[in-house]
Amino acid sequence: MSFADEARALDAADPLRSARDLFVLPEDVTYLDGNSLGALPRATAPRIADVVTGQWGTGLIRSWNDAHWIDLPQGVGAKIAPLIGARPNEVIACDSTSVNIYKLLCAALTLRPGRRVIVSEPGNFPTDIYMVQGLAALGLAEQRLARGNPIADFVDDDVAAVLLTHAHYKSGRLHDMAAVTAAVQARGALVIWDLSHSAGAVELDLDGVNADFAVGCGYKYLNGGPGAPAFLYVAARHQHAIANPLSGWMGHAAPFAFEDAYVPAPGITRMLSGTPPILGLAALECGVDTVAALGIPALAAKSRLLTDFFMRAIAGTCPSVECVSPAHPEPRGSQVSLRHPDAYAICRALIDRGVIGDFRDPDILRFGFTPAYVGFGDAWHAVELLAQVIEGRAYDRPEYRERAAVT
Amino acid sequence: MSFADEARALDAADPLRSARDLFVLPEDVTYLDGNSLGALPRATAPRIADVVTGQWGTGLIRSWNDAHWIDLPQGVGAKIAPLIGARPNEVIACDSTSVNIYKLLCAALTLRPGRRVIVSEPGNFPTDIYMVQGLAALGLAEQRLARGNPIADFVDDDVAAVLLTHAHYKSGRLHDMAAVTAAVQARGALVIWDLSHSAGAVELDLDGVNADFAVGCGYKYLNGGPGAPAFLYVAARHQHAIANPLSGWMGHAAPFAFEDAYVPAPGITRMLSGTPPILGLAALECGVDTVAALGIPALAAKSRLLTDFFMRAIAGTCPSVECVSPAHPEPRGSQVSLRHPDAYAICRALIDRGVIGDFRDPDILRFGFTPAYVGFGDAWHAVELLAQVIEGRAYDRPEYRERAAVT
Repeated sequence: MSFADEARALDAADPLRSARDLFVLPEDVTYLDGNSLGALPRATAPRIADVVTGQWGTGLIRSWNDAHWIDLPQGVGAKIAPLIGARPNEVIACDSTSVNIYKLLCAALTLRPGRRVIVSEPGNFPTDIYMVQGLAALGLAEQRLARGNPIADFVDDDVAAVLLTHAHYKSGRLHDMAAVTAAVQARGALVIWDLSHSAGAVELDLDGVNADFAVGCGYKYLNGGPGAPAFLYVAARHQHAIANPLSGWMGHAAPFAFEDAYVPAPGITRMLSGTPPILGLAALECGVDTVAALGIPALAAKSRLLTDFFMRAIAGTCPSVECVSPAHPEPRGSQVSLRHPDAYAICRALIDRGVIGDFRDPDILRFGFTPAYVGFGDAWHAVELLAQVIEGRAYDRPEYRERAAVT
Repeated sequence: MSFADEARALDAADPLRSARDLFVLPEDVTYLDGNSLGALPRATAPRIADVVTGQWGTGLIRSWNDAHWIDLPQGVGAKIAPLIGARPNEVIACDSTSVNIYKLLCAALTLRPGRRVIVSEPGNFPTDIYMVQGLAALGLAEQRLARGNPIADFVDDDVAAVLLTHAHYKSGRLHDMAAVTAAVQARGALVIWDLSHSAGAVELDLDGVNADFAVGCGYKYLNGGPGAPAFLYVAARHQHAIANPLSGWMGHAAPFAFEDAYVPAPGITRMLSGTPPILGLAALECGVDTVAALGIPALAAKSRLLTDFFMRAIAGTCPSVECVSPAHPEPRGSQVSLRHPDAYAICRALIDRGVIGDFRDPDILRFGFTPAYVGFGDAWHAVELLAQVIEGRAYDRPEYRERAAVT
């Protein structure tokens, strides 16, 4: 069977085929960058219009109570919880991934007095290790990058926590969350999982693996919109014992008592800092609702089929291109990354022709397969176009080599 | 002349009278809570609809470049700058006020090695002092609350910085920014000004008073919407010497090089942390544009007339109510606060009758006079209704005493 026929057959058999209608996608685009910015759910524009014109414009300040704005961080967190294997009171939506990492690094240091090293991987998503460096510059921590495997070998009695991204942003490779968590905890340290590249597309079972802490991004597979609020998970067993270094009024036990002394709210609410960003939270809620309605098991199953098909089609059609994502579906996230010396120019040439993937410095061409709205025909179209662009050297034009501000 | 006649005359002479048309306000509401949540500018709903449907839905990831999303924090900051007496490259829009205070507290401590005390006022807006307490809990600072005046008397060689809110959230009293800044600096410390209750309604001249640092809120007089991003000011002379403790990827000199080592961006950009919240920034930009078009001098002049008229009308009509805002216009922000033992119930009764002010624990009734959309007739209507509610004890109903989640 040709790849084209196989794509048609897989699309016909796809139980999520109609899920694409839950999103607004331009006709002339094949969107393989949902791992960078998820597509717009159909529910979002009317919801945001109502938040702006109805709740803000007409409800004004009253909407903090009447439209339950004040509960959105907890409410959206509770909706994210089942997508990542957590209980509703273990997750809250707030701030950015970076800021949430900082909170959890401090929390981990508090739980492990006498230990001050944070272990991470070289090549982890930059903001994760930059946050460790910020803490180190204050004299509060020391960074250790584990140049080798297994990561637990780098955990000694000085290590308070290990900070890892579950799905690597470049390769899509997944860490074995259960094994790493157990091994690190056996050495007395905690684990902070960054789920930015896995939440919403991959099965996650934070409570099941006895996770300590996690953060994740709202604007990738959760489709929360550009710069959406992030989320933060704290296992229930740790919540009473940790402090939020960014101890703003929304994390206070009684914010509207306006007292001079900070008293942390019970539970996950203490992890809030400033006033919740309502437009961003409302958009994130629409994205989360959309994903939740489809269900992670169905999404993850389709993701594996999609990436498997794409990798086989690439191998059969563009054999000169190296695939850097894991061949086995088990440790593979919902993306496939290819290596090519002209990756940047190729990425630009593809975008010019309606196939949107992205580039990661220096030579990675990255395709995200958001199972909710990417079909097998899309994957095959991208392979065909990639083969054509590479074989005909269509990418070899100066305008495709000029780097944009954001790549 | 009766207050009613005076209100009519003042409205007729108001050069900003038509500015109300720049906002969407419900017909049946007199909105005197713009100091808590600014009203919806008419420009915002269509802009947000375009950002959601056009830039996100159709432009997708390309909008980071094509719609200049990546430049919004600096761009919106540059538009806020002239409203607060700063140069465009001294202001950036990002995160919440709370989180930005934390960044600047750390920056101040870095600039004053050997000093670790942060001075603030008891009764300052809670989140400000809570952020100091968060830093103190990490062992990085010590809080000192100045129980007396002048504040500079509390600044000794241990003090790195003084953190003050320019317009007090309860009373509206303004600090003398020039005098306090000079006195604190003369003792070797820095000042962090929280402009949350003054930016957009009061003349500010940060560069003129040789300010060091400032933060402020986007959702009050800047009309950025619920939970809008905040802003942050760093005087140009300090920018090269400070570090951002929340050193996320957007503050890196080359975020898309994805390097393991954090290198701060030049200038104010290093104060960014995570990915910018685009919906919130776009809404904030609409609010800032609206304020900027009217001009701070005209807004501030009207604000003084409005609060003066309201205070005289209260004194003449409800003599039993104590006014806690300064009688002289010079140290008075754009709000008037009244004290009454039944303030909460009165506030609820007024809201029920279409006059929206707010309550601050335990006995403050607070009215914000956003000069862009509040008229003198509105002020008089509020006074008349207040007199009627108090005299007739219309507030004395159990349902007005039940505290809502947000007060």
